[in-house]
Amino acid sequence: MNQSAIGHRIWAIAEGYIPPASTGPEPEMLSHETVCVLNTGTEDAHLAITVYYSNGDPVGPYRETVPARRTRHIRINDLEEPEPVPLGEDYAVVVESDRPVVVQHTRLDSRQAENALLSTMAYSAS
Amino acid sequence: MNQSAIGHRIWAIAEGYIPPASTGPEPEMLSHETVCVLNTGTEDAHLAITVYYSNGDPVGPYRETVPARRTRHIRINDLEEPEPVPLGEDYAVVVESDRPVVVQHTRLDSRQAENALLSTMAYSAS
Amino acid sequence: MNQSAIGHRIWAIAEGYIPPASTGPEPEMLSHETVCVLNTGTEDAHLAITVYYSNGDPVGPYRETVPARRTRHIRINDLEEPEPVPLGEDYAVVVESDRPVVVQHTRLDSRQAENALLSTMAYSAS
Amino acid sequence: MNQSAIGHRIWAIAEGYIPPASTGPEPEMLSHETVCVLNTGTEDAHLAITVYYSNGDPVGPYRETVPARRTRHIRINDLEEPEPVPLGEDYAVVVESDRPVVVQHTRLDSRQAENALLSTMAYSAS
Repeated sequence: MNQSAIGHRIWAIAEGYIPPASTGPEPEMLSHETVCVLNTGTEDAHLAITVYYSNGDPVGPYRETVPARRTRHIRINDLEEPEPVPLGEDYAVVVESDRPVVVQHTRLDSRQAENALLSTMAYSAS
Repeated sequence: MNQSAIGHRIWAIAEGYIPPASTGPEPEMLSHETVCVLNTGTEDAHLAITVYYSNGDPVGPYRETVPARRTRHIRINDLEEPEPVPLGEDYAVVVESDRPVVVQHTRLDSRQAENALLSTMAYSAS
Repeated sequence: MNQSAIGHRIWAIAEGYIPPASTGPEPEMLSHETVCVLNTGTEDAHLAITVYYSNGDPVGPYRETVPARRTRHIRINDLEEPEPVPLGEDYAVVVESDRPVVVQHTRLDSRQAENALLSTMAYSAS
Repeated sequence: MNQSAIGHRIWAIAEGYIPPASTGPEPEMLSHETVCVLNTGTEDAHLAITVYYSNGDPVGPYRETVPARRTRHIRINDLEEPEPVPLGEDYAVVVESDRPVVVQHTRLDSRQAENALLSTMAYSAS
C-alpha cells in the first residue's frame, strides 16, 4: 500500500483496429479497444495519446488524466478531440505520460456471435 | 531442476475486469480472472496484492502465500479479505512479493455462449 | 507529437501458424496472422523479415517498408517474394529493421464458426 | 539471414492448464498448450523443461532439442518422460536452454463449441 509510482512514461501499441460491426448488448458487448492505464503514484498522471495510421499523418494529442492511485480503462472508441478514431482501419497508439504509469491494451471483438478477446502489455519505451 | 528463484518482486496488471455474468458449468466455466504466480525458489513467497479502482481508493493488501517450488493460480473472484473485488468494475492489480516470482494474468470470459480467453505476462517493475 | 523513433531493430515471434481453413466473409474473416509494425520516427524503416520452419531452412528476406510516422499491419498470408508462407505449418518470424520500430503479432483464427484472437508483443532482441 | 542466436537461456511461463475436454476434429482442435521455441543460431539448442505444480514437487527435466535455425512448437500434451502432464491441473513451466532461444506460449481451448486462443511471450529471466 506504500506503493510509489511504478512503470514508464512512454508506451506503444502497434496493433490497433476497432471492428466496424458488433453483436450483442451495448455497451459491454460493443466491439471496442481499450487502453488500460494504472497510476500507482501519489500525483495525477497527464496523458498525451497519439494515434498513428497507415495512410495519413498521426493525430493527436488526445488529452486524458489518470488520477493518483487510480486506474482508467480508456476506450479508443470514446476519444473525440481532436477527432474520433475511425472504425475498420488499422492504427497504432503511443501513450506519453508526465508520470510513470503501466499500460495494457485489450480488444473485445464481437463481430461474430461470440466475442473474442485479446490483450497484451504495451511496449514500454522509457 | 537446480533452478534458483527467478523473476521479480513487483508486478502490475493494468487490465482487470471480472465479467458480471457467466454461461456454462461452474466452476471451470465461471467467468473469472486469475493471477498466476510461479515461485521457483526454495523459500515460500509471501504476496501482498493491492487492487486499484477507477473510483475510490485502492484496497489491500490481500495476503497470499506461494510455497517454495510451487505455482499458485489465484482467482481474483476468490479474494475475500479485506473485501471481495466487485464484478463488472474496472480494476488493476499490483503484486508485491518478498521473494522473486513470475506473474501472469488470465481472463476466462463466458458471458456469451462460447468462452473467450486472454492472457499476458504482468509488467515487472523491479 | 514530437515523438522520435521508439522501439528496437530486431524482433522475434516464436509462434506462427496460419490456420488452413476459414469461416466467414473474406477478407476480414479470413484466418490470418499479422505482424503489426509502428514507425514513430521521421525516416522510413526498411524491414527484412525471415521466416523459420520446423523442417527446412529459413526463407527470406521478405522486404517491406514502413513509412515515417506510419503503422503497417503486414499479413503473413500476403508475403510473396521469395515464396508464400504455407498454411497449416508451424513457423516463427524475425523482423530486422534499419530504424527502431515496435512490433506486435496477432492471429485471427476463424476455423470454427466464431473467430478467436491472439496477440502479443514480439520479443525485442536489440 | 545472417542472424546470430537471439534470445535468452531461461524462460518462465506462470500460467499452464490443459483443458480436460475438447470439441472438434483432432489433432488440430484438441485442447492443448504449446511452448513455441525459436532457435536462430547456428548450433542446436538443448532444452531442459521443468513443470511446476500447486501440489507436489516439480517434475523434470523433459529433454527436447531445437535444431539450428529451426523453430519447434512443443505440445505440453505430448511430453512423456519422466511423466505426462496431467489434464485439468494448474501448472507452470521453466525452460532452460544451453543456447539463446525465444519462447512463446499458446493455448487452444476447445472445451466449448468454438475454440479460444491465448498467447503470450514467456518471461525471460536471463
